[in-house]
Amino acid sequence: MSLEGIRVVAFDVFGTAVDWRTGVARALTTAADRRGVELDQWAFADAWRDRYHPALREVRTGRREWVNLDRLHRESLDDLLEQFGVGDVFDERDRGELVLSWHQLPAWEDVRPGLRRLRAEHTVLPLSNGGYALLTALAKYAGLPVDGVLSAELAGTYKPDRHVYETATRLLDVQPDEVLLVAAHGWDIDGARAAGLRTAFLERPLEKGPHGLPDRAVDVTSDLAVTGFTELPDHLAPPAAH
Amino acid sequence: MSLEGIRVVAFDVFGTAVDWRTGVARALTTAADRRGVELDQWAFADAWRDRYHPALREVRTGRREWVNLDRLHRESLDDLLEQFGVGDVFDERDRGELVLSWHQLPAWEDVRPGLRRLRAEHTVLPLSNGGYALLTALAKYAGLPVDGVLSAELAGTYKPDRHVYETATRLLDVQPDEVLLVAAHGWDIDGARAAGLRTAFLERPLEKGPHGLPDRAVDVTSDLAVTGFTELPDHLAPPAAH
Repeated sequence: MSLEGIRVVAFDVFGTAVDWRTGVARALTTAADRRGVELDQWAFADAWRDRYHPALREVRTGRREWVNLDRLHRESLDDLLEQFGVGDVFDERDRGELVLSWHQLPAWEDVRPGLRRLRAEHTVLPLSNGGYALLTALAKYAGLPVDGVLSAELAGTYKPDRHVYETATRLLDVQPDEVLLVAAHGWDIDGARAAGLRTAFLERPLEKGPHGLPDRAVDVTSDLAVTGFTELPDHLAPPAAH
Repeated sequence: MSLEGIRVVAFDVFGTAVDWRTGVARALTTAADRRGVELDQWAFADAWRDRYHPALREVRTGRREWVNLDRLHRESLDDLLEQFGVGDVFDERDRGELVLSWHQLPAWEDVRPGLRRLRAEHTVLPLSNGGYALLTALAKYAGLPVDGVLSAELAGTYKPDRHVYETATRLLDVQPDEVLLVAAHGWDIDGARAAGLRTAFLERPLEKGPHGLPDRAVDVTSDLAVTGFTELPDHLAPPAAH
């Protein structure tokens, strides 16, 4: 199956392009070792990510005014450190570094080669709930070959609010159906579809670890289903000249 | 002289990084040849650019609500085609292509090697009055090694309004004095200084052609004065780890 008329490939980041669980667990281990405390880094990373949707929802529903993801990460970190019984161990510097660990996450191995090929014919950017600074730093750290970054921060709300997808198409001056959103999460695919974008579901079986329950292609309605960025170029016809 | 503490290098685009005059004149020649008419492409390019500041001022002063640079370029193009006596020659497609010629401009030869070196230690982005789509397309067309683009469109007004520089520092989550603005125009340098950024004036003697009157370093107050992007890395100390 080949999709015609795609000009822009916009991709989700956490889970879809980078392995947040491994990156954050590594930073937690470093911080715990420095303070000489025991901490289950995997359980903590999972618990931290579990706070993601409830925190975003507060902003998306308007119950809370816009704050960026760094701020939300910091709040849930402070809370979880107490919950894990190490609230008095980690100081301001430790906490700042842990929040910044979300800016320095390893890319899944198919991402760089896949994006590099896509970028030859298409405009390629992350479209993520991470802040503009976070995404810029992360793309640089992970060496992602991209044409810039698009953040939910530019819309002042979070995916899957349709305003985020619409802000992206407005800024890029393209029609919604000229954009392919690539994501490993059904809620993001559904949000993009509702805004008129085309979609590729990318299954990441290990996003949530060996015992996690990631979204599966069979449960998601999308234009394409792939298992890595390297499969995408073969599915896309070259765009016509603007 | 070496500047300490710079994390971000933000650079102006039209004139500073790309040779708009040559690029736009080339597109005008192509369009005129196709329609079989005579047109002084250099005089037209200069006249088109002369409409830039008055058009931006309408938006900046709030006399007109936000419209992006493509729209302003299109309005001044329509007007100038009449003025040059070829208003009935160029159709909708010609005009659309001419507006898009501002998305496809050649970089001055020092730009790519200079940005590549800067990018090794710093976050490097254009900060221009061009729209987000324009800058994304232009960076791709000209092969600029950048970490993304920052457009006045994200602030909803135009440089030198300080809100444009402040939006850039807010999105990148840096202090104003951690940003170096590079520009070939005194008005842009002055605007950046007023917003607390640090500045490098880059002299482009040929920006306005062999008989033009470009801004000169002697008339501009800035932290650095250079004659090409390749000189910049030697003036900047590597940033401290965040």
